[in-house]
Amino acid sequence: MYKLVLLRHGESEWNKENRFTGWTDVDLSERGVEEAHFAAKLLKEQGYVFDVAFTSVLKRAIKTLWIVLEDIDLMWIPEYKHWRLNERHYGALQGLNKAEMAKRYGEEQVLLWRRSYDVPPPPLEKDDPRNPRFDPKYKDLKDDEIPLSESLKDTLNRVLPYYHSTIAPLVKEGKRVIIAAHGNSLRALVKYLDNISDEEIPHLNIPTGIPLVYELDENLNAVNHYYLADEKTLQEAIERVKNQIKEDPK
Amino acid sequence: MYKLVLLRHGESEWNKENRFTGWTDVDLSERGVEEAHFAAKLLKEQGYVFDVAFTSVLKRAIKTLWIVLEDIDLMWIPEYKHWRLNERHYGALQGLNKAEMAKRYGEEQVLLWRRSYDVPPPPLEKDDPRNPRFDPKYKDLKDDEIPLSESLKDTLNRVLPYYHSTIAPLVKEGKRVIIAAHGNSLRALVKYLDNISDEEIPHLNIPTGIPLVYELDENLNAVNHYYLADEKTLQEAIERVKNQIKEDPK
Repeated sequence: MYKLVLLRHGESEWNKENRFTGWTDVDLSERGVEEAHFAAKLLKEQGYVFDVAFTSVLKRAIKTLWIVLEDIDLMWIPEYKHWRLNERHYGALQGLNKAEMAKRYGEEQVLLWRRSYDVPPPPLEKDDPRNPRFDPKYKDLKDDEIPLSESLKDTLNRVLPYYHSTIAPLVKEGKRVIIAAHGNSLRALVKYLDNISDEEIPHLNIPTGIPLVYELDENLNAVNHYYLADEKTLQEAIERVKNQIKEDPK
Repeated sequence: MYKLVLLRHGESEWNKENRFTGWTDVDLSERGVEEAHFAAKLLKEQGYVFDVAFTSVLKRAIKTLWIVLEDIDLMWIPEYKHWRLNERHYGALQGLNKAEMAKRYGEEQVLLWRRSYDVPPPPLEKDDPRNPRFDPKYKDLKDDEIPLSESLKDTLNRVLPYYHSTIAPLVKEGKRVIIAAHGNSLRALVKYLDNISDEEIPHLNIPTGIPLVYELDENLNAVNHYYLADEKTLQEAIERVKNQIKEDPK
């Protein structure tokens, strides 16, 4: 029986401003920092130890991981940071707030982007300064790897190859793995692990700052999963995320 | 022309208590944290950017690196943590303070360990709880790789293979490399790069928290080196380290 621990980072600076973040590299807010410490506390109380850690190349996920590793005294384990674990790329919506979005594209259209599995928001223009090709983080990516917008399906299609090539083999070797990442890159992973339908997955919300444990069988099929928190804490975290979504789909 | 940046971590909790640290995994003191921020400020002012970072598996070096990477907005670059970049292992002296040491081994003997290149302190016993074999950090090391005590020469002999196998090839590829490590693992590297004699090297002190830049030619031979600080700042840092040594050889 293998275990894999997923952790969604907490509140970022842009949550407050009600803006779509995506690949924009904004920092955790103070509350997001607290959420990371809280996640570490839960892991520590239940004696979790890891051999290797994965995260994205976005600082809100990396900082969450660093806080956790420091708090559980595992700063020394190998960390791998990969763009394939980044948040969903929100295309031309990145940086806009809800009011601007509704004004520019209409309420109905915005709802469609948020509730559909395979409809991407409008793409960035090639010369848009938000195009990842201008960011040194992505300088080694091939042209066709750089997203200009993503549906959740697109996100899944770039997360899973990395899971299969790099993460899954380590889990199978018996390494205890933690992945600190984002709402949508983790949703993609959860869709795969639990075989969730295209219709259902956009409605599944992973709470922030609560470690989510997957138990996997010898073929790495999920046999069970649970959050490392009592029911009350978990419900509060879920409500917080739901409210965030009402205000800002992130 | 290649550049390689070395950074020695600042004050740790045990400096205050005047105890030999070695492989003991003590945290930075508040002043050590400030020193890391100061190093980041110097790097930032002079526009330094890195593609990859190396550090030891000891948290005082890792935290120094993390603080620097956060301050210079490079949290996303790959980091490699390796035991071969650890501080010199001080054997049975680890944890003792100067007064205890002098009492147990005599002033003259203590002076010899501190001033010689190739005399190791007394080794740990196999079952000493300080033996690295009891620490999960070192569980993948072979028996003959685990030091029970090291002279500076021994430290050099385990640092250099890692430099040659892993760090140097990346430098030669054109990657901009920073190494955040310890007084003696960096001294070993500096001895090699600058071809310093066995007699001289124990007297060379690298100040903490001041980035040390090596310029290397196409064969990675050092052609120049300098600290990223004005003369006054540098002299103050050197004095601080000298005084530390008087009080605590670290």
